[in-house]
Amino acid sequence: MARTLINPIAVSLGDPSGIGPEVIAKCWDNRGLFGLPPFVAIGDPRSLVAVWDGPIEVIDDPRQADAAFDYGLPLIQLNAPKADVPGHPSVVGAHTSLDALEIAVGLARSGSAAAVVTGPVAKEQLYSIGFQHPGQTEFVAERCGVAPGNVVMMLAGPTLRTVPVTTHLPLSEVVFRLSSALIESRGRAALRGLQRNFGIVEPRLAISALNPHAGEGGQLGREEAEMIEPAIAALAAEGWRVSGPHPADTMFHARARANYDAALCMYHDQALIPIKALHFEDAVNVTLGLPIVRTAPDHGTAFDIAGQDRADPRPMAAAIRMAAENAIQRTQTP
Amino acid sequence: MARTLINPIAVSLGDPSGIGPEVIAKCWDNRGLFGLPPFVAIGDPRSLVAVWDGPIEVIDDPRQADAAFDYGLPLIQLNAPKADVPGHPSVVGAHTSLDALEIAVGLARSGSAAAVVTGPVAKEQLYSIGFQHPGQTEFVAERCGVAPGNVVMMLAGPTLRTVPVTTHLPLSEVVFRLSSALIESRGRAALRGLQRNFGIVEPRLAISALNPHAGEGGQLGREEAEMIEPAIAALAAEGWRVSGPHPADTMFHARARANYDAALCMYHDQALIPIKALHFEDAVNVTLGLPIVRTAPDHGTAFDIAGQDRADPRPMAAAIRMAAENAIQRTQTP
Repeated sequence: MARTLINPIAVSLGDPSGIGPEVIAKCWDNRGLFGLPPFVAIGDPRSLVAVWDGPIEVIDDPRQADAAFDYGLPLIQLNAPKADVPGHPSVVGAHTSLDALEIAVGLARSGSAAAVVTGPVAKEQLYSIGFQHPGQTEFVAERCGVAPGNVVMMLAGPTLRTVPVTTHLPLSEVVFRLSSALIESRGRAALRGLQRNFGIVEPRLAISALNPHAGEGGQLGREEAEMIEPAIAALAAEGWRVSGPHPADTMFHARARANYDAALCMYHDQALIPIKALHFEDAVNVTLGLPIVRTAPDHGTAFDIAGQDRADPRPMAAAIRMAAENAIQRTQTP
Repeated sequence: MARTLINPIAVSLGDPSGIGPEVIAKCWDNRGLFGLPPFVAIGDPRSLVAVWDGPIEVIDDPRQADAAFDYGLPLIQLNAPKADVPGHPSVVGAHTSLDALEIAVGLARSGSAAAVVTGPVAKEQLYSIGFQHPGQTEFVAERCGVAPGNVVMMLAGPTLRTVPVTTHLPLSEVVFRLSSALIESRGRAALRGLQRNFGIVEPRLAISALNPHAGEGGQLGREEAEMIEPAIAALAAEGWRVSGPHPADTMFHARARANYDAALCMYHDQALIPIKALHFEDAVNVTLGLPIVRTAPDHGTAFDIAGQDRADPRPMAAAIRMAAENAIQRTQTP
């Protein structure tokens, strides 16, 4: 990847006791194999040293990462009051992960980093120190001055992109939270994101049904006729290329996937089952609707395997790579 | 496939105006390529002649199919009052498809056919002639003297098998239809089916969660704790190898699939999204819990492409092949 097009990518280490530090270090180890652009990690160096023997290049500004990248993992250093232990999350680690996130977002906001990639955090620990957001996405949105309702999560892999309309809800509440207006606004955000982040001039969005067989003409549910079809009509009236409601089970095979650039799904598992079945190692969580590019690997802290050299760095590598691709795209899209 | 192990497979043509006749004819054309055992079609020969130029060998008894199979497509002939037109379903065609189904099941029941494979039918047409069952599965169950609640549908592909606990329901009703007892009984039927039809002595069943992240300790739903975990405990207490509740989005990647022989899923799309994303061309619908082996391709009549030489015969070929494999397995399992 050409180095001169964009500034380096800011990568927060996430929870220092999770697998974030080691997968980020392994990304630097395999930067050639994975085709990674220069990036700078942000966090406590002790969380890297605890799990990794490689060289660290402490820097002050992301733009120094370009020169340092050949010699060691560039790091903007946080000084936590104490070192954390892999696999043993703590309140101190929660503070460190939040500080790293805050700095990484700030660097991307200022433009000195081209994009931000967020390492996995422990939500329960964060809540215990007063973190008020459901997750990192909402925190990033707030820091960017965007209402959380205006950002959408996209899961993007090499042959499939999905966007859930609703996310972390009990399945029984999905039907009460869905509305034509919500489907329409999420759809629009997804379409704009395909233009801005992926450079697709006339994106095609396939919109799923909620019920089996797309409700079979109303016999298996009315949400298609009452909520989804009106949203599709509204988006089509704006000139967007939208289709559906498609029965969800026949949307995700190879021939079907060739007909759209992203699938808008009605609930969490409908969007995440296919992307993880097909692209478990390289699906990336991309936040659309932000003034900055933000991606994340679609996995958690995995405390149970942290520090054991077992964590797979490929999802993090895919997130860093996609952050750079999206950032380059944004410099080229008006 | 060795010819002497089992009797031929009975294959009903399904609706004469749908793609059933042509995919079955194409299976005979490609019997070597697809590795198919001798089978006999059951239906009106005019529905084959309308879409196919190959040779037909009219026979009276499935056991004659073995000798005839090299020379033409063996057929047990039904004489419908008039020929049907591809792509134009009719009431006459509905009668023909029902007659073919009835005969095919009878042949399997009597043992002169080793198994039954059912071609796709048009449910709306069947309902209009007084068909009382939700689908062919329930009809087959009744003819076999098994209560519909005691049979389960399995979708089986080369690297994944899934069984839905609930099937054709609006998504909003799933939570009201689920119960510990239902999950337990479907799970038990799936496990027995893995033993009887697939010859897996100690089958492993992975049971999905209903809610995202398996309910995240109750924050995203209580069904895991209240319904699914008790069912898992009950099955485990009987000595079955069961696991879960697993978050549905992380159950279906290759490494996860290696840990179980079948996945028991809570609703239609949860079971069908992954199987069709991974195995669209070769997923087979297998009915477990019957005294006979019954499979079907997992597609419909596709009236919109019938008679145009566009239908893919691979799902039907997979259904015939799996019927034979299951039948052979049953002769070997006590």
